[in-house]
Amino acid sequence: MHKKLIVQKFGGSSVANVERIQNVAKRVVEYRKLGHDLVVVVSALGDTTDELVELAAKINTEPSEREMDMLLSTGEQISVALLAMAIHKLKKEAISFTGAQVGIITDTSHTKARIIKINADKIREELSKGKIVIVAGFQGVTLTQDITTLGRGGSDLTAVALAKELRADECEIYTDVEGIYTTDPRIEPKAKKINALTYDEMLEMASLGAQVMQSRSIEVAKKFDVPIHVRSSFSDSPGTMILREVKRMEDVLVSSVTLNRGESKITVCTVPDKPGVAAKIFKNLAENGVSVDMIVQNVSHLRQTDISFTVNKTEVAKAIKITRKAAAKIGAGDVLQDDDIARISIVGVGMKSHPGVAATMFDTLAKRKINIEMISTSDISISCIIKKKLVETAVKALHGRFGLAK
Amino acid sequence: MHKKLIVQKFGGSSVANVERIQNVAKRVVEYRKLGHDLVVVVSALGDTTDELVELAAKINTEPSEREMDMLLSTGEQISVALLAMAIHKLKKEAISFTGAQVGIITDTSHTKARIIKINADKIREELSKGKIVIVAGFQGVTLTQDITTLGRGGSDLTAVALAKELRADECEIYTDVEGIYTTDPRIEPKAKKINALTYDEMLEMASLGAQVMQSRSIEVAKKFDVPIHVRSSFSDSPGTMILREVKRMEDVLVSSVTLNRGESKITVCTVPDKPGVAAKIFKNLAENGVSVDMIVQNVSHLRQTDISFTVNKTEVAKAIKITRKAAAKIGAGDVLQDDDIARISIVGVGMKSHPGVAATMFDTLAKRKINIEMISTSDISISCIIKKKLVETAVKALHGRFGLAK
Repeated sequence: MHKKLIVQKFGGSSVANVERIQNVAKRVVEYRKLGHDLVVVVSALGDTTDELVELAAKINTEPSEREMDMLLSTGEQISVALLAMAIHKLKKEAISFTGAQVGIITDTSHTKARIIKINADKIREELSKGKIVIVAGFQGVTLTQDITTLGRGGSDLTAVALAKELRADECEIYTDVEGIYTTDPRIEPKAKKINALTYDEMLEMASLGAQVMQSRSIEVAKKFDVPIHVRSSFSDSPGTMILREVKRMEDVLVSSVTLNRGESKITVCTVPDKPGVAAKIFKNLAENGVSVDMIVQNVSHLRQTDISFTVNKTEVAKAIKITRKAAAKIGAGDVLQDDDIARISIVGVGMKSHPGVAATMFDTLAKRKINIEMISTSDISISCIIKKKLVETAVKALHGRFGLAK
Repeated sequence: MHKKLIVQKFGGSSVANVERIQNVAKRVVEYRKLGHDLVVVVSALGDTTDELVELAAKINTEPSEREMDMLLSTGEQISVALLAMAIHKLKKEAISFTGAQVGIITDTSHTKARIIKINADKIREELSKGKIVIVAGFQGVTLTQDITTLGRGGSDLTAVALAKELRADECEIYTDVEGIYTTDPRIEPKAKKINALTYDEMLEMASLGAQVMQSRSIEVAKKFDVPIHVRSSFSDSPGTMILREVKRMEDVLVSSVTLNRGESKITVCTVPDKPGVAAKIFKNLAENGVSVDMIVQNVSHLRQTDISFTVNKTEVAKAIKITRKAAAKIGAGDVLQDDDIARISIVGVGMKSHPGVAATMFDTLAKRKINIEMISTSDISISCIIKKKLVETAVKALHGRFGLAK
């Protein structure tokens, strides 16, 4: 058998308690027994990170980001030590490292640092001694030895970056689901696990609300062509491969239906149709750190138009305040807020060469009497904003119409 | 005012919760406002270390010592980050460091590492910027970047070693008592706080059962002449200074009465009076990791003698087993165990030149009809083993007789 180097990443829910840590140890040891070299990246135990964030908030509501990183990085350090002990218990050699110890060098942007380089000599050395190498995810260190963290989804990023640096044969991302699904199985029980996706499809899905992996780590995987395998830490069945190119048995136009109920819609009415007006609204939002998602502006009538956009629910109050100020300045009319919306999207590289896909989507929704409030498209996805209560009907209709249950 | 460099060490009970961390921050900031340079050493929050030890035990009852250090060192890392945040909240500049980051280099004896050297440049640099420097106690790093811990009382050791390296004016050890007392105030309410002690007296007291500081850090302080101030983190009153030499107002013979109820007595009866016999017993105990405290052997009658010694209660079962085996081999008689004992000791550098002190002690106990079962003396202490139920009477009698309540 070909001896592989595999990077395996286990998220917080996979190591939430003693029993699960032992389960991960067992899985890792099984792979080791097959003769593979293993680098295991681990997140903090269950809710540890949230608990530490809460603790910090009790002391300082605006904690220094450097000190937050100092604090939060302990979570993964605990995980790696415990996993090493659990593997030792199974009579296999293993050694744990912090991000700093294995030379994951980052810039100085605390709480959202970017990896500059990895000096993986220490890992290679321990692998050559036959040890399973366990690395704390989510963290790195600056050139001046300050501890940094990589932001949301940081452990995935650690795994992908190590896989790239070590030229690993595979990067396995273990999670509490079986892989990526054609849509949310809680809404559509006919949802199927997808065997393979392209990086672009996964990126699109992540940006549209799929929560399995963060965009950043997929981007790095795409850039360096690291094959990713998203799979369950509770079962042995294969999950979803994420690759540069996917050879599919038939011409698949749409690979998944995703949804996002976490946004609100803001509409600025009767905006004067003059150059620079839209810029003013969105510049103010950006300067205040509000990220805007979909933006739609129709052609104008009577030299005025309506501009609608969506923002994350958590930022809507702030966004409304900023937008009202801007609207007053530019002489626009009312600013309306609508929380009763959802975004439904279809994703698939196949639609690039098939312009009929959008029409099929709109037709499917129309047949269910679902009104489309906003539309936005990219190369490989089409999104519609609809009434929130209709989202389940829409998911099932689109899932069936594009043949995803087969 | 003379600007001082002060090392302050806060133990786990001083930072057991958010309120106490804020209290420590307040105290540190007050000192900073006086213009002093401050290096603050912190232990893990309250029972964190014990909790981590328990967690590890659930996974592996014989965890690798390297991995234990990886695990336990997170406790202090959490403390330093939180304390830095609490100080920032009070609008003072502070920066936290792990043992590794400030270059506390140790040998590779995990869980009980010894400090080899400290590269304190980073601390000096941050102090020169006007920052309060917060250092994780109890931990260091090997030359190959493995995290180590310093064993029991390790945070005190960190503080004393940093005070030495930085040539600090003072090393303050904050604890939950007001200082060192002439005896345990829970037994003798007339106990007085001692203003100053010599290193030797403190060492003797630590070895006899006083639990305020571990011997190791006092030894280092003595070796490098680091003045130590043991004081309460809950009050502003001065505590106890520990120094090379103490100038006292009057000739103090005895500075404290200490007691230890944590030992058991083992007696080997009718031991043949031949060379090497005692060695055999104690060699076996040592090889099995049992530390023996007091040892008493009387002159022999009829070519045989009794040998008595004390061991920590936690090790008595093991010690008895080993001793019975050894006794059988050397042809000795019964091996008896007595848990109903306590050790009472008087300590004082003054007794060096006053041979009458021992007699006074024995006379005081005799007057209270307290039988002495074993006696052991050092240069600056005298210890007696007595019945456990008589220990409170003995403490009060000796405390009064040597004028400690004045």
